[in-house]
Amino acid sequence: MKDVSNMLKISVIGGSKVDADIYELACQVGKEIARKKAILVCGGLTGVMEAACRGAKEEGGLTIGILPGCDESQANKYVDIKIVTGMGFARNIHVVLSGHAVIAVDGSYGTLSEIAYALIYNKPIIALKTWELKSYLIEGSPSIYRAETAKEAIETAIRKAEKYHE
Amino acid sequence: MKDVSNMLKISVIGGSKVDADIYELACQVGKEIARKKAILVCGGLTGVMEAACRGAKEEGGLTIGILPGCDESQANKYVDIKIVTGMGFARNIHVVLSGHAVIAVDGSYGTLSEIAYALIYNKPIIALKTWELKSYLIEGSPSIYRAETAKEAIETAIRKAEKYHE
Amino acid sequence: MKDVSNMLKISVIGGSKVDADIYELACQVGKEIARKKAILVCGGLTGVMEAACRGAKEEGGLTIGILPGCDESQANKYVDIKIVTGMGFARNIHVVLSGHAVIAVDGSYGTLSEIAYALIYNKPIIALKTWELKSYLIEGSPSIYRAETAKEAIETAIRKAEKYHE
Amino acid sequence: MKDVSNMLKISVIGGSKVDADIYELACQVGKEIARKKAILVCGGLTGVMEAACRGAKEEGGLTIGILPGCDESQANKYVDIKIVTGMGFARNIHVVLSGHAVIAVDGSYGTLSEIAYALIYNKPIIALKTWELKSYLIEGSPSIYRAETAKEAIETAIRKAEKYHE
Repeated sequence: MKDVSNMLKISVIGGSKVDADIYELACQVGKEIARKKAILVCGGLTGVMEAACRGAKEEGGLTIGILPGCDESQANKYVDIKIVTGMGFARNIHVVLSGHAVIAVDGSYGTLSEIAYALIYNKPIIALKTWELKSYLIEGSPSIYRAETAKEAIETAIRKAEKYHE
Repeated sequence: MKDVSNMLKISVIGGSKVDADIYELACQVGKEIARKKAILVCGGLTGVMEAACRGAKEEGGLTIGILPGCDESQANKYVDIKIVTGMGFARNIHVVLSGHAVIAVDGSYGTLSEIAYALIYNKPIIALKTWELKSYLIEGSPSIYRAETAKEAIETAIRKAEKYHE
Repeated sequence: MKDVSNMLKISVIGGSKVDADIYELACQVGKEIARKKAILVCGGLTGVMEAACRGAKEEGGLTIGILPGCDESQANKYVDIKIVTGMGFARNIHVVLSGHAVIAVDGSYGTLSEIAYALIYNKPIIALKTWELKSYLIEGSPSIYRAETAKEAIETAIRKAEKYHE
Repeated sequence: MKDVSNMLKISVIGGSKVDADIYELACQVGKEIARKKAILVCGGLTGVMEAACRGAKEEGGLTIGILPGCDESQANKYVDIKIVTGMGFARNIHVVLSGHAVIAVDGSYGTLSEIAYALIYNKPIIALKTWELKSYLIEGSPSIYRAETAKEAIETAIRKAEKYHE
């Protein structure tokens, strides 16, 4: 087993129901995370979570899914390590706390809750196509960064995560 | 003991550090809740939470504080019923779920997390001087309502809570 | 509204499926709690929880149910104040932490988890017909007390709660 | 990265303060888990948790620590993957739910809470030198198994986990 204890962990948050474009974008995000030798953390379900895990696996990465239910069965098939919480949407907090940086792709109210917890815990957030939040949150917070592409998102995430992780 | 089982519960969310104007506004909100014979639910700490509890007690109301820590000592002195969770900020979810409607007064990232959970669970939210969120959230959601005064906020909250509670 | 902020809170834990004798015993426990002007805290569901709430209401007491699900509908009809957690069995921790003493009546694994958390947080536990636990736990812990009747259980609970609450 | 998605996960629970004999035993448990190519899950702190992680790492295994606090700093140095919950002792539930079987080594009230949750969720438990619980729990439950040695504990755990995991 390769040493994973020093690998950065990047949390990817986003909606469980997404269109094809966002799915592809989240998949790119997952690929980039794997290429950067970081571990992908997510909520383990469908949509952005599945797409990001899928991308990471295609590039040989490691994926962690922190699940809301009481067993592993709900995880998407690209999750390597399934953390089972039994706590419903409260698991959103774990997803945010377990990453060194957070990338938000699209997303709905669950994503908003994760962004809020990332802000509470002063965790770097990279906003990728989550346009609705930009105007308010970016100007108000020192820890939200915009990105236009998956590649740019990961580069910022890694840079901020390293700083945070030091 | 008067029958409390059929009383509406209104959750008040908002920052733990507030200026005098917001403190006064939250106090008015608490007073109005008590006048309407509703129970006030909040996070039990300082700022908006304390002000709202204080107002409710001045009008003879009943207050519930759902606390993040492991004992009651952190509750503000206007909390009647202290629910102790030991779960930190995850208790924000309980504050939202335990009310029939939610009034957001001012507030920071914790408040944002509560608004997000209220949206997840389709709970009516009344936004009072939480201007930063208005532009994005109100247009996007069918369950956020603006109010300009404490009185208007409670009237809307009661009306929506009754509908939700039916 | 009568002042409830200084009332002791007694948590009653026990199984959701019980026979008639245990139901009657839990009902007596609820009655005694109300007679002592204490607030009853429980998990809000069936069995021991329902019986205790029912007893408390018959004596004009106040009951709090801390619910595992995402809405109030699962509460038994004798719960006055419904706290909604959305966190499943993790709410057992809140039930224990929110009382000044804990009375265990019969019960199964959920009750065992609550006893464990009461021990973790050094909360007084009164064991009433939870015979299976007696041999191990009572000898090992300074905070578990046996009782043979509902009346004796409440008297011990109140005494220990007052000490704890001071 | 080797494929970890099909590896069994074995949770090791036990006290954070242990004597040298228990530390050594827990270390053996960790070694055996790694030799069986299973992933070790634990609460990530000291005592049994540290010893088990240490043993697993000495044999090239993979370790997961599910932490109670809000950052990674409290993890013992043998934890590879740190899951950060911010929920205090409620994280005990995740430790139990995330393994396919649970091995209890020694332990105190926290361990008792984990055993209780394993019973609630019908998760196989292997009791190793947790003598206090044997008499009550083993006779009452179909899912608790005794073991006398680390080797025997893991063999039983793997066998039960495979059955559970199928």
